[in-house]
Amino acid sequence: MPQGQPIAVPDDGLTTRARRNTPVLAVHTGPGKGKSTAAFGMALRAWNAGMSVAVFQFVKSAKWKVGEESAFAALGRLNTEQGIGGAVEWHKMGSGWSWTRKTGSDDDHAAAAAEGWAEIAARLADQRHDFYVLDEFTYPLKWGWVDVDHVVETLLARPGGQHVVITGRDAPQRLIDAADLVTEMECVKHPMDAGRKGQRGIEW
Amino acid sequence: MPQGQPIAVPDDGLTTRARRNTPVLAVHTGPGKGKSTAAFGMALRAWNAGMSVAVFQFVKSAKWKVGEESAFAALGRLNTEQGIGGAVEWHKMGSGWSWTRKTGSDDDHAAAAAEGWAEIAARLADQRHDFYVLDEFTYPLKWGWVDVDHVVETLLARPGGQHVVITGRDAPQRLIDAADLVTEMECVKHPMDAGRKGQRGIEW
Repeated sequence: MPQGQPIAVPDDGLTTRARRNTPVLAVHTGPGKGKSTAAFGMALRAWNAGMSVAVFQFVKSAKWKVGEESAFAALGRLNTEQGIGGAVEWHKMGSGWSWTRKTGSDDDHAAAAAEGWAEIAARLADQRHDFYVLDEFTYPLKWGWVDVDHVVETLLARPGGQHVVITGRDAPQRLIDAADLVTEMECVKHPMDAGRKGQRGIEW
Repeated sequence: MPQGQPIAVPDDGLTTRARRNTPVLAVHTGPGKGKSTAAFGMALRAWNAGMSVAVFQFVKSAKWKVGEESAFAALGRLNTEQGIGGAVEWHKMGSGWSWTRKTGSDDDHAAAAAEGWAEIAARLADQRHDFYVLDEFTYPLKWGWVDVDHVVETLLARPGGQHVVITGRDAPQRLIDAADLVTEMECVKHPMDAGRKGQRGIEW
């Protein structure tokens, strides 16, 4: 990791401070492990800096992230009860987004994903949070449930200093082009290759 | 990510439960971002599962991880004060390891790294923690400050169900061979390439 000294200083007329506070759009993609885990590690750091953190999970099998959800709930309570760190919200698509009262649309994943993105776009316009994790958001993009061009335009036009991290395999090229930070996780070796199942505290 | 079903079930005579509880040795390597961040994300999940977490930072410029250290301190207090999650210890090489009273050896990084590894080996033998993060530990291995063979033998022979995650570029091949889970982080695009400096809550 570069330690403090940028490789080149761009001729963009910005002061170091202005450039430093530029909001980051990060994408964690590739077939390897750690895409979501690194995003939650970044969210932990953002929480510690007092940022308002919001996580949006776009894949139904939410049981795989219960560890993170529970840990961030504890961090959120530290904020509300003791004023430590930032606020935390955790939303998941599983059984209808938490902000909607609608039920019965559980099986229409495409509609639910579109609804989730519409809510995020509205929150970005309102500068509702400081740090957004759009977990496994590449899949609804890949499957055409959410329009990539609208996502890229909305992200590039977002006001203020809002940071966004998007995770998932096969990130679309237009999203990669728009991102400031892209990391590809390559799987070199995985215990499930040796027939192990996931275990609590390690896999979820 | 594989979701629950292993690719093949090994003919190792173990029950699923026994295999499931096999301790994991993970290595996060490669030139990209997210190696440490993903390790801390795993530690967060382990903490949530009630595991005793210990972090050992092997690089002097500890200012880059203050966000994680502070967040894990808050999680550790949640454990001691409210019984939530697991215990947390955070040790860094910066100005002498916290368990030693020795001073003046700050400039002998090789000796400090060897001392850090000796302490970790002793703790592994004692089954002192459930989840160890050896952050940037590949560098003392690469520089010959700590013997790779001793590390690999000690890790492979560690008793009980202790999980270990090692981060850093250029992980030695013997360590990769010994690991259960190896992820290579590839840097596709980095904001410092565009002349940005790191910023609080994002980079540290």
